[in-house]
Amino acid sequence: MESISRRTFSTKLSSGIAGTALLSNMPFACAMDNTSKMKKLGVALVGLGSYSTYQLAPALKDAEHCYLAGIVTGTPKKEKEWMEKYGIPQSNVYNYDNFDTIANNDDIDIVYVVLPNSMHADFSIRAAKAGKHVICEKPMAVSVDECDAIIEACKKANVKLSVGYRMQSDPYTNEVKRLVKEKPFGNVQYVSSDAAYISRGNPGQWRLNKSLSGGGALVNMGVYSIQSNIYGVGMNPISVSAQEFSTRPDYFKNTDETITAQMEFPNGTVAHMFTSHNANANRLFVSFEKGWIELNPCHSYGPLSGRTSKGETIAYPHKSQQMLQMDDFAKHILTGTPNVTPGEMGKRDMIIVEAIYKSISEGGKQISLDLGNMGIVG
Amino acid sequence: MESISRRTFSTKLSSGIAGTALLSNMPFACAMDNTSKMKKLGVALVGLGSYSTYQLAPALKDAEHCYLAGIVTGTPKKEKEWMEKYGIPQSNVYNYDNFDTIANNDDIDIVYVVLPNSMHADFSIRAAKAGKHVICEKPMAVSVDECDAIIEACKKANVKLSVGYRMQSDPYTNEVKRLVKEKPFGNVQYVSSDAAYISRGNPGQWRLNKSLSGGGALVNMGVYSIQSNIYGVGMNPISVSAQEFSTRPDYFKNTDETITAQMEFPNGTVAHMFTSHNANANRLFVSFEKGWIELNPCHSYGPLSGRTSKGETIAYPHKSQQMLQMDDFAKHILTGTPNVTPGEMGKRDMIIVEAIYKSISEGGKQISLDLGNMGIVG
Repeated sequence: MESISRRTFSTKLSSGIAGTALLSNMPFACAMDNTSKMKKLGVALVGLGSYSTYQLAPALKDAEHCYLAGIVTGTPKKEKEWMEKYGIPQSNVYNYDNFDTIANNDDIDIVYVVLPNSMHADFSIRAAKAGKHVICEKPMAVSVDECDAIIEACKKANVKLSVGYRMQSDPYTNEVKRLVKEKPFGNVQYVSSDAAYISRGNPGQWRLNKSLSGGGALVNMGVYSIQSNIYGVGMNPISVSAQEFSTRPDYFKNTDETITAQMEFPNGTVAHMFTSHNANANRLFVSFEKGWIELNPCHSYGPLSGRTSKGETIAYPHKSQQMLQMDDFAKHILTGTPNVTPGEMGKRDMIIVEAIYKSISEGGKQISLDLGNMGIVG
Repeated sequence: MESISRRTFSTKLSSGIAGTALLSNMPFACAMDNTSKMKKLGVALVGLGSYSTYQLAPALKDAEHCYLAGIVTGTPKKEKEWMEKYGIPQSNVYNYDNFDTIANNDDIDIVYVVLPNSMHADFSIRAAKAGKHVICEKPMAVSVDECDAIIEACKKANVKLSVGYRMQSDPYTNEVKRLVKEKPFGNVQYVSSDAAYISRGNPGQWRLNKSLSGGGALVNMGVYSIQSNIYGVGMNPISVSAQEFSTRPDYFKNTDETITAQMEFPNGTVAHMFTSHNANANRLFVSFEKGWIELNPCHSYGPLSGRTSKGETIAYPHKSQQMLQMDDFAKHILTGTPNVTPGEMGKRDMIIVEAIYKSISEGGKQISLDLGNMGIVG
């Protein structure tokens, strides 16, 4: 990834190099503040699987307000490799047994929990107890009760909590939010979002093991659709109904393969979502009174792509979403800017996940939701 | 509309003027046969509302194998206007009372029933009894029983029957069918289609009066989504579940405003549809193992627009879908080419419509369908 400072980047954009139709209100505008003079926060990654290896660690090399300070791994041979690659001292290397002693390490400001979903609550709570700010990878946990426990632990420890919703820091997402809020196409009336890929790997992977994942496509990919339906409408839903489909039960033994769901919103908007581990789809379509916008791809690591009914292209130079996400959280800690992915957002989405599973178990019945503005930021 | 013969048109296409990425297997290829030497069939339009006035009558001026020979109207002042505009003799003008005497008029080969939905069965059956071939506008009728009665009457009278599904003759639709069948992107795994517009007109219009329409968005626009889901997958569904949403009950008094439905297919494909009289959406998305195709707009009168995950554009020079549709039916009668929109297709879709309403009345329950290859042509 090309390393350009945010200041340079903003300048490039405003001078037109981006060739972009819809560039106003970019989150990069924040580059003009003085946070660049502040200290960088140290992040410890807990769990060194592919997401840490190929997304988070490289993103932390480019981040402005945080850096990779430590690792927590259960695989000893990874320790040396990561220490060398990222210049991490032995004193900042932990395993799952001695993890709690991270409380004594001033190099570590933020603990990012990147473990299988069923371990999120345990390690997030332990990180909070160690006095560290917490990023909990999505889905936040495997139940609403666990989300509550994490939120409570962070409050009690007086540490900040965010969920690893990288899309919330992405400029495409924020452009959708702007168009929904500023209404150049009028009010939203229908939203459809898809988040799906075809799983063909080892059927023994943790994502396909319910005791580790807590669920299948819905908790892995569906939370992206839940999120994009919500920011596509600009409010929380008041009901959801859902359906489950299964065509490869030999492969998807105890996790959901394909789920569709319909959400109803206070303003009458209807949103549909499709999530699957057995199909490719990666889209957000927002229909307004006077036009539409579409992102495709929408939920991938990028580069994303978008267009509008006016024939405009929505395009931004590619930046690591994970870098933007972690920088946003670091800035929240350092300067008090809004936490764009608070724990309440992760809990809200888990309430919806549980309602979707309930609807499916009750034959597609519409389930009421009482979310208020929970998790809606800005 | 520019009047170019099909032969000229095909030549233009093959010489590259169309600028189209995916031009093979175009239905225009049929222009190379010798049907142009045959007589044109006379069509009588029953009901001179806006669809007849602005779509069908102009299309019949450009059609190659049929022409506007007669009219049937309940509005006397339209008679003279249409006679003058289209050179129709008084002897080919009927009202709803003397309609059955059309049996004695050799100028009329085809009767196209363009009345409110609840009148389709009555006039289609009377047209068959008069010995005329029948085009019944979509939705075919307001119940499966009525569809059966129409099909039976046409069989008994030994006349041909088609449903006014203009999309089935459209080159974009046929390109989707080709890609689904020839599998350059692999097998289909997910389909999503939307057919919706915002109704703001006179709330007393017949489309919003259930006794005349038989239903709301579902029967008016939803049948397009049902059709595009089916040709997007290439087979008939085996189950459907559905949900209804209402936000403007004062305007949509007794017809459905917004309906979502999910279809399951024998090969495991899941398809979603959205139809509404209270939102704008007009799309077909087909996701394959190795890519996707999208039409947007998809169900309008055109020009349509399409693209693929390879960055290709799907584009054809605009031609009247209604002209292509009526010419296809005329050729079916004249030369025995396949009837691309047989009565069984209309009946199949009404079976699905009734199942969708049943699912809604049962709280979203999945309803099994036993359709076999009913209505699948080619």
